[in-house]
Amino acid sequence: MTKQMVEKITNMDEDFAQWYTDVVTKAELIDYSSVRGSMIIRPYGYAIWENIKDALDHEIKGTGHENVYMPLLIPESLLQKEKDHIEGFAPEVAWVTHGGDEELAERLCIRPTSEVLFAEHYKNIIHSYRDLPKLYNQWANVVRWEKTTRPFLRTLEFLWQEGHTCHETEEDAHEETVKMLEVYSDICERVLAIPVLKGRKTEKEKFAGAKYTYTIESLMHDGKALQSGTSHNLGTGFAESFGIEFLNREGKLQPVHQTSWGFTTRIIGAMIMVHGDDKGLVLPPEVAPVQVQIVPIAQHKEGVLNTAYELQRSLKNSVRVSIDASDKKPGWKFNESEMKGIPVRLEIGPKDIEEGKVVLVRRDTGEKIHVKNADLETELPRLLQDIQKSLYAKALEHRMNKTSIALHMDEFKEGLAEVGGFIKAMWCGERACEDAIKEETQATSRCIPFEDEALSDSCVYCGKEAKELVYWAKAY
Amino acid sequence: MTKQMVEKITNMDEDFAQWYTDVVTKAELIDYSSVRGSMIIRPYGYAIWENIKDALDHEIKGTGHENVYMPLLIPESLLQKEKDHIEGFAPEVAWVTHGGDEELAERLCIRPTSEVLFAEHYKNIIHSYRDLPKLYNQWANVVRWEKTTRPFLRTLEFLWQEGHTCHETEEDAHEETVKMLEVYSDICERVLAIPVLKGRKTEKEKFAGAKYTYTIESLMHDGKALQSGTSHNLGTGFAESFGIEFLNREGKLQPVHQTSWGFTTRIIGAMIMVHGDDKGLVLPPEVAPVQVQIVPIAQHKEGVLNTAYELQRSLKNSVRVSIDASDKKPGWKFNESEMKGIPVRLEIGPKDIEEGKVVLVRRDTGEKIHVKNADLETELPRLLQDIQKSLYAKALEHRMNKTSIALHMDEFKEGLAEVGGFIKAMWCGERACEDAIKEETQATSRCIPFEDEALSDSCVYCGKEAKELVYWAKAY
Repeated sequence: MTKQMVEKITNMDEDFAQWYTDVVTKAELIDYSSVRGSMIIRPYGYAIWENIKDALDHEIKGTGHENVYMPLLIPESLLQKEKDHIEGFAPEVAWVTHGGDEELAERLCIRPTSEVLFAEHYKNIIHSYRDLPKLYNQWANVVRWEKTTRPFLRTLEFLWQEGHTCHETEEDAHEETVKMLEVYSDICERVLAIPVLKGRKTEKEKFAGAKYTYTIESLMHDGKALQSGTSHNLGTGFAESFGIEFLNREGKLQPVHQTSWGFTTRIIGAMIMVHGDDKGLVLPPEVAPVQVQIVPIAQHKEGVLNTAYELQRSLKNSVRVSIDASDKKPGWKFNESEMKGIPVRLEIGPKDIEEGKVVLVRRDTGEKIHVKNADLETELPRLLQDIQKSLYAKALEHRMNKTSIALHMDEFKEGLAEVGGFIKAMWCGERACEDAIKEETQATSRCIPFEDEALSDSCVYCGKEAKELVYWAKAY
Repeated sequence: MTKQMVEKITNMDEDFAQWYTDVVTKAELIDYSSVRGSMIIRPYGYAIWENIKDALDHEIKGTGHENVYMPLLIPESLLQKEKDHIEGFAPEVAWVTHGGDEELAERLCIRPTSEVLFAEHYKNIIHSYRDLPKLYNQWANVVRWEKTTRPFLRTLEFLWQEGHTCHETEEDAHEETVKMLEVYSDICERVLAIPVLKGRKTEKEKFAGAKYTYTIESLMHDGKALQSGTSHNLGTGFAESFGIEFLNREGKLQPVHQTSWGFTTRIIGAMIMVHGDDKGLVLPPEVAPVQVQIVPIAQHKEGVLNTAYELQRSLKNSVRVSIDASDKKPGWKFNESEMKGIPVRLEIGPKDIEEGKVVLVRRDTGEKIHVKNADLETELPRLLQDIQKSLYAKALEHRMNKTSIALHMDEFKEGLAEVGGFIKAMWCGERACEDAIKEETQATSRCIPFEDEALSDSCVYCGKEAKELVYWAKAY
């Protein structure tokens, strides 16, 4: 096992895709199985997901939402009730046709998302404006029949939360859509140390069945973008198809205004590709299952292991601390701890014990810090905070360095080829130009930022009157 | 909504099945959907599940287990690798045959349980005794194609945790099987206030693929038993079928010894049927989403609502407290609070405010207690503990009263007909007698208790030499 762990991983600038695969397997985040396109999330990977989930669940409940659980299977006729929705999802759902030996009269799909199930339930329980708003969320697994898959980034099955809400007015639904995008953005920036762009998706890229989709977009080390969370204003589309009506304050029946929003295990892939380096994972302290790894030096010498264990006990209320007391050599332990992205390594040997101090090593910078034992309880949380902020600052700088402006398509192509990352360019709003840009550059529209900004008056592609600024990028 | 809530529910001794349906829907635990046999777990029901889950997850982690996540879908060939297992589960799995428009080369079943997925993974990651034990758990949804279904008790899809462990020796696996049954028993008795019988399943009733199955069995208000959690020693069966081998301390290859154990949303059904009464749910304080419901009396009078809100603020660090400040009449609020099984109602009106006290009303007994405001912070937690203990004691007494001894089949039948509940009777160990008893009485063997006990020397059915004592009952 040790052998596999410290085996050299591919250099990230040589072959980023292979580096990614090396990291997710060697840091023991996932394993493959005989189920095509699905992954096994191993204890270390799942502990990271639990930390993300706990942080997000806290925010979701804190903003007044309640958790529920909807069925996994959706009858075909129910899925078909909203026509844009079925068109968007039909090509990528898994169909159950048999239960035991019996062929089903109507086939059932495994939920790719649960709008129609929530809609059916809301129709049952919403009658009056007094029943609104309904602010529901569920943590669940969903299945989408993807052709090509990669761990975390695109898998046949993934874990997520999906929020589904109903409101009295258009304004309330809009506010909710914005609020939940803010929650996602906060989780990314504060917890995962991933800076995000916030904006609106184009009509082409919006959710099937939505009025509009808001998105947060992040930039990976290799200069590709990744959609990191979406929040949809569904308008009254589902409400009209499903008949979710309520008596409003004027005593008239009207359809509810809805939103939905989702955040998935995909974000773990983003976290790896934003912070990782040639030694493996680099975990933001907020989500690291182990924040401080104690490595005893010359542990066979009297008193070393005992002191290390004492230290662990004394620190466990301030930080998530673990100890590697195995019989491997310190160098191997260092490598393992680095591969797993543990934010701080704490070295303690006979000389340190004599001097009443330890050596802390930052995973992100490699910096060594000598700290007195007495100061550890205050110093460690401070250091972890500092690492969290540094990771964010570094990722933000990376994104800034990889964002270019293009007034014409030659600049667009040059920016993509030489800098990569995001291209800011004006757009006329026509689908034809969006398609042509993708065709010629492989870059897709990522978002129309909330802040109004104009680089010029003309569309980067057709030169006609520009409607808005768009961030473009090649994306995962 | 109010109207539906306080609508009279069926009397439990008149029609227990209808009472159950009334309670799960009117207390807003579940809703039905167009997905046959599946249920929507509504916010109040899901909050109960989250409390149970948190308590159990804490115990599972506290006993050294790690959470992981395995795929939802299992290729048919993988499911078939262990022959007893596939025989047991094939009749009740849902089959996915199409992904999008494409027919699959091999059909996939939705996991009814995940032994084969864990086995495949364990084969990959276990090589030496140094890799053992592996103590994994997952929280997941599973699907079993049941013909007749009832909310929580038997649903097409249910939520659960499934533990899967690998060990060096037979003794280690046995110890684990026992340990996890103890954890389940503790959760039932301490958290859910449900007394359980612990014992072994007969060969007929054991898990498909197990060496033996341990079970906890509880008794419902109507005298039917309910299997409340099972822990299986899988022996080396799966290890041999899947080739999960390790180099032992003597340097020889040998198969691992395995266990698996599961606890499901079914327990919510048990909790309802053990504690509920003719007014609706009765929740044990440990799992109640709201432990204390404040109902302001004459809330239009000056100062009442303000004082009620102040009280809520001052209590929220000691208990889970909510306030019903809607414009419904107090009587309606009482009924709703009772229907939802909230352990304590706190009434506060103008006169109470004058006197600096409140009235507490116990949901389980209806007892009214006058308490000074200053004492609430200590009195409420004490009262909740008392309710928790009373519920357990009452349920235990019910089970004792509904447990009979039978030396012969006439006593067996008489006990079932007149008392119901558990029948303790000796058994020869033959499947034929077990089948005949079921055929004649509809009672099944629930468990062979761990404590050795003998009522006589002869089997209650055939009169031949008895091997062991068995608890029998009609069961859910």
